[in-house]
Amino acid sequence: MDLSKKRLAHIVFEADDLPGKIFDIVLLVMILGSILVAILDSVASIRAQYGEIFFFLEWLFTILFTIEFLLRVWLSRKATGYIFSFYGMVDLLAILPTYLSFFVVNSQLLTVVRALRLLRIVRILKLGRYVSEAEFLKRSIRSSSHKILLFIGFILTIVLIMGTLMFIIEGPEHGFYNIPIGMYWAIVTLTTVGFGDITPATPLGQFFSSIIMLLGYAIIAVPTGIVSSEMAAQRTREQLAKGIKCNTCGKAGLDPTDAYCKACGEQLP
Amino acid sequence: MDLSKKRLAHIVFEADDLPGKIFDIVLLVMILGSILVAILDSVASIRAQYGEIFFFLEWLFTILFTIEFLLRVWLSRKATGYIFSFYGMVDLLAILPTYLSFFVVNSQLLTVVRALRLLRIVRILKLGRYVSEAEFLKRSIRSSSHKILLFIGFILTIVLIMGTLMFIIEGPEHGFYNIPIGMYWAIVTLTTVGFGDITPATPLGQFFSSIIMLLGYAIIAVPTGIVSSEMAAQRTREQLAKGIKCNTCGKAGLDPTDAYCKACGEQLP
Amino acid sequence: MDLSKKRLAHIVFEADDLPGKIFDIVLLVMILGSILVAILDSVASIRAQYGEIFFFLEWLFTILFTIEFLLRVWLSRKATGYIFSFYGMVDLLAILPTYLSFFVVNSQLLTVVRALRLLRIVRILKLGRYVSEAEFLKRSIRSSSHKILLFIGFILTIVLIMGTLMFIIEGPEHGFYNIPIGMYWAIVTLTTVGFGDITPATPLGQFFSSIIMLLGYAIIAVPTGIVSSEMAAQRTREQLAKGIKCNTCGKAGLDPTDAYCKACGEQLP
Amino acid sequence: MDLSKKRLAHIVFEADDLPGKIFDIVLLVMILGSILVAILDSVASIRAQYGEIFFFLEWLFTILFTIEFLLRVWLSRKATGYIFSFYGMVDLLAILPTYLSFFVVNSQLLTVVRALRLLRIVRILKLGRYVSEAEFLKRSIRSSSHKILLFIGFILTIVLIMGTLMFIIEGPEHGFYNIPIGMYWAIVTLTTVGFGDITPATPLGQFFSSIIMLLGYAIIAVPTGIVSSEMAAQRTREQLAKGIKCNTCGKAGLDPTDAYCKACGEQLP
Repeated sequence: MDLSKKRLAHIVFEADDLPGKIFDIVLLVMILGSILVAILDSVASIRAQYGEIFFFLEWLFTILFTIEFLLRVWLSRKATGYIFSFYGMVDLLAILPTYLSFFVVNSQLLTVVRALRLLRIVRILKLGRYVSEAEFLKRSIRSSSHKILLFIGFILTIVLIMGTLMFIIEGPEHGFYNIPIGMYWAIVTLTTVGFGDITPATPLGQFFSSIIMLLGYAIIAVPTGIVSSEMAAQRTREQLAKGIKCNTCGKAGLDPTDAYCKACGEQLP
Repeated sequence: MDLSKKRLAHIVFEADDLPGKIFDIVLLVMILGSILVAILDSVASIRAQYGEIFFFLEWLFTILFTIEFLLRVWLSRKATGYIFSFYGMVDLLAILPTYLSFFVVNSQLLTVVRALRLLRIVRILKLGRYVSEAEFLKRSIRSSSHKILLFIGFILTIVLIMGTLMFIIEGPEHGFYNIPIGMYWAIVTLTTVGFGDITPATPLGQFFSSIIMLLGYAIIAVPTGIVSSEMAAQRTREQLAKGIKCNTCGKAGLDPTDAYCKACGEQLP
Repeated sequence: MDLSKKRLAHIVFEADDLPGKIFDIVLLVMILGSILVAILDSVASIRAQYGEIFFFLEWLFTILFTIEFLLRVWLSRKATGYIFSFYGMVDLLAILPTYLSFFVVNSQLLTVVRALRLLRIVRILKLGRYVSEAEFLKRSIRSSSHKILLFIGFILTIVLIMGTLMFIIEGPEHGFYNIPIGMYWAIVTLTTVGFGDITPATPLGQFFSSIIMLLGYAIIAVPTGIVSSEMAAQRTREQLAKGIKCNTCGKAGLDPTDAYCKACGEQLP
Repeated sequence: MDLSKKRLAHIVFEADDLPGKIFDIVLLVMILGSILVAILDSVASIRAQYGEIFFFLEWLFTILFTIEFLLRVWLSRKATGYIFSFYGMVDLLAILPTYLSFFVVNSQLLTVVRALRLLRIVRILKLGRYVSEAEFLKRSIRSSSHKILLFIGFILTIVLIMGTLMFIIEGPEHGFYNIPIGMYWAIVTLTTVGFGDITPATPLGQFFSSIIMLLGYAIIAVPTGIVSSEMAAQRTREQLAKGIKCNTCGKAGLDPTDAYCKACGEQLP
């Protein structure tokens, strides 16, 4: 078996042949396993029973991730370039918490960092067939980012004004202790979440609540409209650029305004 | 009356003539009736009064469904082919629970299986005019399934990170007992359901809650945009392939870019 | 002043001249006034103070509506044709409750019927500029009614299966007393309303709740997509049929693919 | 340094050179600062500690805003024209509350007016790159305003009828004290907010609640469809009028149906 440095780098960094794919799948299972352990470990009753197994598994995963990290450092053409890249930082963050638990007494914050291991999956998927789909979503959202920022600014203005208004109308006796609480309530209401932990009790408060609810219900149409029209435009553009592919015979580069494949006569998707 | 095996098979499996339609309607009424009985039987006060009638009706429906099932087995060209098909399994699941209630003491789980009888309606509708509409919806959703899967992966990542964060910030004293509970809360909040059974009580928790709510409110635009643009594309394609039909004179195959019917001059739908 | 029967009928049934418009506005104010009286009359503290004035106003509105009803019967070409039309029934329903309050002891149900007076506003608006907009909305919804019915059927199936499942998992001890209550909870959850009056308490129940919430959050995209793509298609069709109008110089029938008015050179809306 | 009246007016009213931009950024920071002070001042525990600093900062901001207001009055070609313009009124409202706090004992209402300072940010952004985006959103919403008004009328009719119905079905014993409370509940439910402060307790009430929830869930598609189709139409029109710009080489006025830039050959956005 060829295990030269170049060959190893290919297996670790690419996924276009069998060993590369197996490496990615093993990594995927390990990441999901380590996250599952972190989740189950937080449940007191399960921890009481399996706490020691979880402790052992957490160290096992950490040691394997450490070996993988060192392998990547060794294999990459420029070690510091890899370490200070986005994925390098994520890989480092995936192993640091467990080692730090020796020094830090309150290790709870380290659990959040362990949840960040999920971000490592992005790299694995990046090499898969989801690239073009993710690119499509990213481009659609980026194209409409200005409109969406404007919309969020508009929402925050409503939240501030409504939060202040409700603080004055309802007051501390109905749970609106201060403006930040009023703004929290306004966000809960405008986004149609509606926990019900704080609710208006005066007729005037209920009237203004009704307005903010109808507003929230109506303006959800705005971001949806922005993204929908953006995606429709992207889709047309993409099809014009690439053409479409026949699912039946596999012929690519077909004119998107055609309804039937000119190669095999089947209806196009 | 012609009741040859071939004729019977036509009545049972097709619905293009009167006897076939009557057979389907009788079956539809029986399915809905058996489900209604299961629903009403679960209400303690109604059961106390009509429990015996429900018991009788349930057995009546089961025996009739059994006869129908045996009929289908006998009439289908290949018996095992029918039994192991999707619809065959659904038909079998529709009658098994009642017979199993002889052997199983805790018969509650069987109630769920009885609810699956509703799936049998799909077959009846499949033969109706809803086929093309269902096809349209199915094709639109399938075309965008990659994008939707990516979106669900993105949501689960947010749910994991936010659930862990809230478990650490709020802790057991405010109802966030462990990470799975935190993730349940994150889903309740992100989807804008907002039961209010668990709510943040600390300012920091309320701040992160506000972020997750605004996020949930904004990203609902993404699946909507995906499906909308997909459907718009599907619709254009479908019209190009089939042409449209004039509602006034019934002329089909018209050019979808026309505004008036070229046969009768009426405005097109 | 010309008050022939024909002239009166024109004032009452049309709204294209000043007297007709005044008649409509007076009627609109009276309808809204009578509904406001019904709303305020239901508030115990306000009723205690102004109950007698409300009683007098209710009778005043009823007598005026009665005169209007008799006028319409007299003026319409065929009296029975008007009375048994949709608007005739609505007009009759607007005056009957008050007269019936003589005979019916429990007059609460009559309040709902009084709320139906609001439907009378539809007739007045029908003669206004909202006709074409309402037509557009109606046509878009009717075109997609098959798809929407299919979608509602799909939702009711989920509601039945999930309601039954939760009734079995959570049971009466957590508020899921029977299947109808379980279905009510499933609707509250799937539609993302989330009252929180009934919430899952077991881990398994919370897991299935999470699934139904994510489902509800994702499938909202389907009806939105249906209506959006339908409206986009309607809009294109409408513009092709009618052409568009320049807001600056008022020129109508312009080609919708033009960006500037060919009559005055201004940018088109 | 040139500080003639004309030069000063340019700095204050425009933002196309460095001094103008600095002036705008300083103003932006001051507005956000004064709002932050108002928010924090409402939190009892923070006020107890920093109340005096907040009092001083509030007066500092007020005096600076006053100087800015007088500067604008002096610099504008017609003083009364500026004062009675929309922005003039907003600027005046930004400074009045603090001065009025000398005369008004209950100064809480003044806090709301202070929140209106946020509107001043609009002017600053108006001179930035968000103009065209805001114009796009405004035009899309204005074009569909008739349809949206009709939709809100439809919602209010449902709210009135459902509110009255629930008041009669559930009655005061379940929290539905009068029709306005019933209407408040109907809005909470139809908009899918679902606080849970008032919930139906009778089977009939739960049945009607289910209908209003499914209705609210389905009709959200209507405003979304309106805005989406409107935006798609706007977008097409805009592109036809202006052409699109290549992100790579900066070439503008390109045909929007092209997929590649004809100047540099890069794929168009």
